[in-house]
Amino acid sequence: MTREGEPSRLRAGVLVTGTEVLTGVVTDRNGPWLARELQARGAQVAEILLVGDRPADIGRGLRRMIDEGLDVVVSSGGLGPTADDLTVEAVASQLGLERFLDAELEARIAAIVRPLARRRGVDATALSAGNRKQATVPRGASVLDPVGTAPGLVIAGGEDRGDGAPVLVVLPGPPRELQPMWRRAVEVEPLRSVLARARRAEVHTLRLFGIPESQLAQTLREAQRDGVRLDELEVTTCQHRGELEVTTRVPDGSGPAYEALAAFLAAAHPSELFSRDGATVDEQVADLMNGRSIAVAESCTGGMLAARLTDLPGSSVYTKGGLVVYSNQAKVTLAGVRRETLAAHGAVSQQVAAELAEGAREALGADVGVGVTGIAGPGGGTPEKPVGTVWLSVAGPGERSMTRCVRLPGDREEVRERAVTVAMHMMRRALLSAG
Amino acid sequence: MTREGEPSRLRAGVLVTGTEVLTGVVTDRNGPWLARELQARGAQVAEILLVGDRPADIGRGLRRMIDEGLDVVVSSGGLGPTADDLTVEAVASQLGLERFLDAELEARIAAIVRPLARRRGVDATALSAGNRKQATVPRGASVLDPVGTAPGLVIAGGEDRGDGAPVLVVLPGPPRELQPMWRRAVEVEPLRSVLARARRAEVHTLRLFGIPESQLAQTLREAQRDGVRLDELEVTTCQHRGELEVTTRVPDGSGPAYEALAAFLAAAHPSELFSRDGATVDEQVADLMNGRSIAVAESCTGGMLAARLTDLPGSSVYTKGGLVVYSNQAKVTLAGVRRETLAAHGAVSQQVAAELAEGAREALGADVGVGVTGIAGPGGGTPEKPVGTVWLSVAGPGERSMTRCVRLPGDREEVRERAVTVAMHMMRRALLSAG
Repeated sequence: MTREGEPSRLRAGVLVTGTEVLTGVVTDRNGPWLARELQARGAQVAEILLVGDRPADIGRGLRRMIDEGLDVVVSSGGLGPTADDLTVEAVASQLGLERFLDAELEARIAAIVRPLARRRGVDATALSAGNRKQATVPRGASVLDPVGTAPGLVIAGGEDRGDGAPVLVVLPGPPRELQPMWRRAVEVEPLRSVLARARRAEVHTLRLFGIPESQLAQTLREAQRDGVRLDELEVTTCQHRGELEVTTRVPDGSGPAYEALAAFLAAAHPSELFSRDGATVDEQVADLMNGRSIAVAESCTGGMLAARLTDLPGSSVYTKGGLVVYSNQAKVTLAGVRRETLAAHGAVSQQVAAELAEGAREALGADVGVGVTGIAGPGGGTPEKPVGTVWLSVAGPGERSMTRCVRLPGDREEVRERAVTVAMHMMRRALLSAG
Repeated sequence: MTREGEPSRLRAGVLVTGTEVLTGVVTDRNGPWLARELQARGAQVAEILLVGDRPADIGRGLRRMIDEGLDVVVSSGGLGPTADDLTVEAVASQLGLERFLDAELEARIAAIVRPLARRRGVDATALSAGNRKQATVPRGASVLDPVGTAPGLVIAGGEDRGDGAPVLVVLPGPPRELQPMWRRAVEVEPLRSVLARARRAEVHTLRLFGIPESQLAQTLREAQRDGVRLDELEVTTCQHRGELEVTTRVPDGSGPAYEALAAFLAAAHPSELFSRDGATVDEQVADLMNGRSIAVAESCTGGMLAARLTDLPGSSVYTKGGLVVYSNQAKVTLAGVRRETLAAHGAVSQQVAAELAEGAREALGADVGVGVTGIAGPGGGTPEKPVGTVWLSVAGPGERSMTRCVRLPGDREEVRERAVTVAMHMMRRALLSAG
């Protein structure tokens, strides 16, 4: 859900090129990343457009974004050394800019690429043809030095050129090249000046766990009826892996409206609102560890809980490790689950979840142990324990323990992902209650 | 890399609505999924357009896709019961179609929603207002029955209505509703007839591991010089987690051209081309298990390797489980790594990787053991062992063992993902050599 922003806001678009993202072989990370960056700098992102590597499609996409009257357009991809990388050509031709070989840039690229190429045994003729292509840039564009091998571009918009074109930022496709280059681009004129015009606003994030989106929509309507000035704010709510994220853009001067909204949500959903400062449950768990250590024993999530815990840099300080106990035998020998428990209650049961949590704690000598056992599907469901049934347990810190059962919707991947999220929230509660 | 398709091909576009995907809070899965579906049915996908939930942006996006002269446009999202879900309104207004309340549809939706709502304690008035909204559809549209609670639509295109509009398919946002509904939509007129016009072609996928994309581009140029009829084919190459995927659209009658291409690639990269039938390395490993069992002990990948192995349904047959041994203590107590080995060589070393592989095998009683230890970053690197250094080892089947070191590029997430891919390929080789 989104309310309209002010009509005077700076409007931006992102053009992602690459047949691999269009066909879904690779998930595009650049579009959303750039959208967040632009929003954080005060721009309203009107669209993300994904097109293939065909020059006609790139040209048409660009033309349409120009015709939209956007203030800033950022493109990703198509800057490589080969003949199939056609973004610069398409840009120059759409804007009617002549291209020329920038000899100094050619030398800079060659110096960067040569050692890389030598290691990989790339042919020298192909290499210098590639360098020349990459150093052939539109006249008047500001060149952004390569992070990998491809240079980027900032091209002045309508105010300088008098044709209503947006400021255009041309970036390479690999995220590890695009992201540092974008951070440099925002300091380069004329992008710098255009972004400075954007109306700054603070962006706040609230997170809730355990209520459906429709319920939150209802609460927002009640807040408005109750006099909360939602019309001053831009509130976006979205559901993700069982959590709700509420992002609010707060223009200068609307701080009180936001405070009223946050207070209303906290009163309406006191136990569901778990984060008022944007911190994720992962970050909260990390903060709450407080010198304690954690270990997990997981069956249906098959390593995903351990992987999520160790996703944060620095997690090695408190993560002792984990046991992936997919087979019953492993549950017994590694996690110390008793054969009688398995026989009496089955692998997906309260008792086995609790013994897994205790077993993880003991096997790894941790302060907190977590156990997960469930039916991720597509097979294995029964009328009593349908696919999506997951038992979770947290043992510790100290004498504390909690066990619960959830029925999660979705396919195998979703059930596994959501089970991990439920486990993270149970850990958070266990650590919170321990202080 | 992509070559142009035949100009006469059916052209399609996907319109994804939702502020949450535009801001990157949720990764859009519908755009790529629909693009693959459309391509498999012979359409060429010209673009995927992501816009927010603002009605003006949805309307403009749709208008532009109509003006592009596309044959089919599929939209996802914005069909919910609340006032913020505006896709149907935007569609009707862009196409100039009157909407009416379909009483029969209203009753069908109510019957589906009522039990769900009762469980969640949703207010009855809000509920029936929502039902009415969802049952208000454009005149002349074919209604697709709800999979969740939202109905979809198929709206006739230009041939029926004489205004050049594409056939429009309006689907809900949640993938588990969208996917089954799309499969039904392709049987509904007029979508059925339009897709039947698409020129069918076979799509083949080859996979390579261990060569850079530039090298493959070079090989393709050589193939063309050598007389392989690439002009008859549409070849797309893309890099993903260290692998290269080569997707080729082969029109009727171009089978020999494709066979020549596949043979050329096999000759040029005999050990890198690991899949000629599209099977992923995960599927190959599963097939090669052949009654044998596997267990892993992982440090830097922290559970991701076990999670990937257990990602496939049915993996419980051969996956015994895993040890996530993040701390040195866990490496010793769980995986049986010797303290002397850790002291002499450090945790990231050939010797520790080998002992982890043996230890996993032994602890879980598996035929094959895999060990992974490395430096995922951002901290922990040294001049001798920089971030990205990963040692991997596979023990078994039988007396076989192999250990190797890689230096992986990218950030923490990329290093971890790529390390898992390298491990999968080592398992594949170990199983292949064992027969």
